[in-house]
Amino acid sequence: MPVYLDVGERLDDLMLKGYKIIQHPKRFCFSMDPVLLSSFVTVGPGERAVDLGAGNGILPLLLAGKSEAAQITGVEIQAELAWMAKRSVKLNGLTDRVRIVPGDLRDPEILETGAWDAVVSNPPYRRRGSGKVNPYSGKAIAHHEITCTLRDVVAAAARLLKNKGRFAVVYRPARLNELMAEMDGAGIAPKRGRMVYPHMGDPANLVLVEGIKGGGPDMKWEAPLIVYKDKQGNYTDETLRMYAMDAARGG
Amino acid sequence: MPVYLDVGERLDDLMLKGYKIIQHPKRFCFSMDPVLLSSFVTVGPGERAVDLGAGNGILPLLLAGKSEAAQITGVEIQAELAWMAKRSVKLNGLTDRVRIVPGDLRDPEILETGAWDAVVSNPPYRRRGSGKVNPYSGKAIAHHEITCTLRDVVAAAARLLKNKGRFAVVYRPARLNELMAEMDGAGIAPKRGRMVYPHMGDPANLVLVEGIKGGGPDMKWEAPLIVYKDKQGNYTDETLRMYAMDAARGG
Repeated sequence: MPVYLDVGERLDDLMLKGYKIIQHPKRFCFSMDPVLLSSFVTVGPGERAVDLGAGNGILPLLLAGKSEAAQITGVEIQAELAWMAKRSVKLNGLTDRVRIVPGDLRDPEILETGAWDAVVSNPPYRRRGSGKVNPYSGKAIAHHEITCTLRDVVAAAARLLKNKGRFAVVYRPARLNELMAEMDGAGIAPKRGRMVYPHMGDPANLVLVEGIKGGGPDMKWEAPLIVYKDKQGNYTDETLRMYAMDAARGG
Repeated sequence: MPVYLDVGERLDDLMLKGYKIIQHPKRFCFSMDPVLLSSFVTVGPGERAVDLGAGNGILPLLLAGKSEAAQITGVEIQAELAWMAKRSVKLNGLTDRVRIVPGDLRDPEILETGAWDAVVSNPPYRRRGSGKVNPYSGKAIAHHEITCTLRDVVAAAARLLKNKGRFAVVYRPARLNELMAEMDGAGIAPKRGRMVYPHMGDPANLVLVEGIKGGGPDMKWEAPLIVYKDKQGNYTDETLRMYAMDAARGG
């Protein structure tokens, strides 16, 4: 299905069921984070999931390809990115399963409350005012807490989820205590965690956490995820499977 | 310096400066936890440290051997264990640096308030009433929250520490969210963490966390600690260095 590509945009191959994604180097290109998160989150067949802060639609597309979810809805506040995501959905013939909703995740009316099996998010990591703010506002909004804070994202997840629904997030280990406190405070009990280390022997640079709305205490910290097997940038077998998704799934 | 050994007790070699420790298989034998914690905690030369729940004195002895702390005080509620620890301190000629105080860490008068550079603890991991309670009450008190809860330990640490003093703890990853929430709630900001995995590919079974009283946000999650290099129970080089302490420190 042909779609319009805007100036500066490019089409990248997702190596997943032949899917392609529209990216814009100055506005939004996806990183490793959604690849790891889409392999970590539990989304069962027939379930309905939401992605809070969908950017160019990378997580909804990956979830559509990796899971048998019935419906995946991505919420994105930046109109340009939502439009980019919508075109990628169309391009891949996924309009029956993936929907992109332009709007503010803090808006309590944006989606049906208490109705979703899973919520995923790759929220902005940086506190407002910390570090250098990217002069391209699209990237700034994706990386800094400009249009929403961690608390906003967790509150939206708690509002949208069914009881016992799952919230999965990729975040910086530096703020893991804040993340788990916000989840506990919003009634989403952290149940699974996984530390991500670039190389064996490096400090963690990402953390994956999944919680259950209304869940009980105690969580499991899964095996360490090591991204690269050497300093030449070669992926470990596990990371390779997450990227070369078709190969790993025999698809 | 000869000391009296009670019925059922034995003398074990700490492989550290020739130190020995009195253990009692039915009352208390140390596990890997204090070995890992004593290698993780930051205790500088001339500093004064407290161990909350010292058991048979293993952590104070390891800290005396691994650090240049001026003074290490272990608080232990079980009179039999405190007496065992006192004899081990004497046996190793450490009475000038290590002191064992029999008593309750919840007692606000037990030690000087706001006066300590570092507090360490290997607190009971299990909630009261969870799992099988060991019929030997000494072990039950060490493993279950019978005489003190996590909150009691963190509150005692917050009370004892100087401003900017450090609290280091070894705990179960299952309760990491609770641990960090209690620390944050008591004004001890988690600053360093390390996940401990028995083998590469296993879930974490221990976690080490160090916080700073009155510290700022953001923490570092250090490289994964892998305990065994194979299924035959051979330690990795790093664990071996923590155990064979003299070898690693040149004597």
